[in-house]
Amino acid sequence: MRQTQLFTKTSKDNPSDEVSKNAQLLIRAGYIHKEMAGVYSILPLGYRVMEKIIGIVKQEMDAIGGIQMKTSAIQSKEVWEKTNRWSDDVVDNWFKTTLKNGTEVGLSFTNEEAYSNIVKNFVSSYKDLPLYPYDFKTIFRNETRSKSGIMRGREFYWKALYSFSADQEQHDLFYEKAKVAYSNVYKRVGLGDSTYMTFASGGTFSKYSHEFQTVSEAGEDLIYIDEAKGIAINKEVFTDDVLAELGIDKSTVIEKKAIEVGNIFSLGFKFSEPFELTYKTAEGTEVPVFMGSYGIGITRLMGTIVEVLSDEKGIVWPETVAPFKVHLLSLGDTAEQAESIYSQLLANGIEVLFDDRQGVSAGAKFADSDLLGIPHRVVVSDRSLAQGGLEYKQRTSTEATIVSVESLIQQLTA
Amino acid sequence: MRQTQLFTKTSKDNPSDEVSKNAQLLIRAGYIHKEMAGVYSILPLGYRVMEKIIGIVKQEMDAIGGIQMKTSAIQSKEVWEKTNRWSDDVVDNWFKTTLKNGTEVGLSFTNEEAYSNIVKNFVSSYKDLPLYPYDFKTIFRNETRSKSGIMRGREFYWKALYSFSADQEQHDLFYEKAKVAYSNVYKRVGLGDSTYMTFASGGTFSKYSHEFQTVSEAGEDLIYIDEAKGIAINKEVFTDDVLAELGIDKSTVIEKKAIEVGNIFSLGFKFSEPFELTYKTAEGTEVPVFMGSYGIGITRLMGTIVEVLSDEKGIVWPETVAPFKVHLLSLGDTAEQAESIYSQLLANGIEVLFDDRQGVSAGAKFADSDLLGIPHRVVVSDRSLAQGGLEYKQRTSTEATIVSVESLIQQLTA
Repeated sequence: MRQTQLFTKTSKDNPSDEVSKNAQLLIRAGYIHKEMAGVYSILPLGYRVMEKIIGIVKQEMDAIGGIQMKTSAIQSKEVWEKTNRWSDDVVDNWFKTTLKNGTEVGLSFTNEEAYSNIVKNFVSSYKDLPLYPYDFKTIFRNETRSKSGIMRGREFYWKALYSFSADQEQHDLFYEKAKVAYSNVYKRVGLGDSTYMTFASGGTFSKYSHEFQTVSEAGEDLIYIDEAKGIAINKEVFTDDVLAELGIDKSTVIEKKAIEVGNIFSLGFKFSEPFELTYKTAEGTEVPVFMGSYGIGITRLMGTIVEVLSDEKGIVWPETVAPFKVHLLSLGDTAEQAESIYSQLLANGIEVLFDDRQGVSAGAKFADSDLLGIPHRVVVSDRSLAQGGLEYKQRTSTEATIVSVESLIQQLTA
Repeated sequence: MRQTQLFTKTSKDNPSDEVSKNAQLLIRAGYIHKEMAGVYSILPLGYRVMEKIIGIVKQEMDAIGGIQMKTSAIQSKEVWEKTNRWSDDVVDNWFKTTLKNGTEVGLSFTNEEAYSNIVKNFVSSYKDLPLYPYDFKTIFRNETRSKSGIMRGREFYWKALYSFSADQEQHDLFYEKAKVAYSNVYKRVGLGDSTYMTFASGGTFSKYSHEFQTVSEAGEDLIYIDEAKGIAINKEVFTDDVLAELGIDKSTVIEKKAIEVGNIFSLGFKFSEPFELTYKTAEGTEVPVFMGSYGIGITRLMGTIVEVLSDEKGIVWPETVAPFKVHLLSLGDTAEQAESIYSQLLANGIEVLFDDRQGVSAGAKFADSDLLGIPHRVVVSDRSLAQGGLEYKQRTSTEATIVSVESLIQQLTA
């Protein structure tokens, strides 16, 4: 895409009303637009990143048997009263609104009830199980304060999968697969090294839930990491008993602030019982379905990547989620040569943002490129052409080299 | 996909609380789940249809220069007060809700204000124009009554593109392209023969807007069709003056009920002026941006396809939007052979729903297949195998033929 056709522009100054690094950088670089505290529109560059993250999460969910659908945002009182989660005294972050006929309705802040209520219509026999429906969805939470940019929105985008299993044994098999799928997601979006599967408090049906926590000073959680084992314990369950149970020596753990980027949870019968979501076993007994929940905040994950990987010059996107693979900069009087290189890169299926702006200084183009954070920078200048090619530099590197178009294409498509 | 893994099931009886054909069929076939009047969750089969429609609309929008983004659902009072559309006295279908701090916010019922407010930040020169941002989005409208299934939801999914042009001339060029893109969409989703570009009332800046109306008894509009010209006039502007201007003879038009499946509109300065969305011309004058809007209801389009193309046996999906291309039915004791055919079809990149259910009668499988409406039905039975192959029938045909796997694959991948 040509930068002259991309309608957003960068800004030199941090927005005065943002304290989080992710919001500051994403707004300055033109990835998002702030509507109000905790509510952001995603601009074209940001949407490309979101789509890539969604694509990765979707692949991993489909690979473990997930089946995609789309639940409504508007939710009815009757459904949520079954689990006693309708009342604002119980759930303090509902957004509610009213139909013309006076009926009060809610906007999804989570999805267990919606899924239990739907799946109930289609499950009657053990042959119908297990099931792994999921969706990507806008979620609404009436947060009192919202200062963490797209990491904690009043409106945000997430993926939630719910598992419906015949019994705990069937559930546990899937739960282990979900752990692997989740780890794959964080590896693939570039957070593998800084993300730990973290033991957190469970519920009635299992001792622990598992959070995925990415180490960051911007995090709201405290975790205790055992580097050798590659796991962590959330402060909320960091007790001598738990340490003993997990075989972790208190003297070896490191305390870190971390961002919760995902969460998997055994729900057991907590929702199936109130919804009378039961099935008939092979022996003909009517028993409740065993459920689990598996969530990832897509916009939070995007914000976390910015928090963790950016540097003093701007955003640093891993290639897997970058809006474009290559940022092609035409400097000085090189429009013609740059156009030809742009065409060749596109012809080879490479996603390119082409800074074809005229009358913008080299310094400004370099600064924009660093701020936007596209992984591979390719500069066409009189100097590079005199040296027989293009100046190539990775966003994460300080060294530039002169390469020919052919070798660049070979390297980028390898 | 195996039907045993698809968690939805068909139902023989129409839901008692639905009067529209689209809702009745889509609920019976397991494409959608009713949350309340005008609010539906989209089940896995329905989601596959929605994704295909979205894919077609996205292609057509990208082809005319559209650039995708994602605006927020939550909208602020200040933004909508600029055009005097915040008040419930002016707009009677707002859903509003309240932040913890008491601030009233709205849920998007349309998007002109949101886009004007965002684009304003990035446009200053004629060089920044034209721009064609769009998004797919859940839209909320507080309808008093909602009896048309997914054709008129209190919550629905749409695509809206807004054009930002330097002047009417630049605008008109795009507007003509949009007409073609819209016509392409209806052709591609199988409604080309029954959908007419329809002259409807314009606004301050142009005499007409253009609706795309699909002929159907379920429609809420009355249109007058000139078959020879392939265009129509909405009742709201069906006057002798308009007929004369369009060169249409009143005696040749046919009155029909129709469903509005899309709408393109020249907005002129209606939104750019209140938002002070202006730019500097090449001559240095500050003038307002000329805008246009281009909407398609994705869920409404899906409902319209069901209304128009279904028959007494069930839904009839055009191949371009069908959840699967082939419905493979294994009858009697043919599981082994059917598994092999299923593998071969998948290996050739064909999307197959495989009815691998055991203990379900042939009659029930045929009835389900007709209800689901997948375009190509392939039956593996003892009889078909004895005749040397598979029984093949199109959903729209009454004649079945015996074909070999090889010739079937050849035909489906041609």
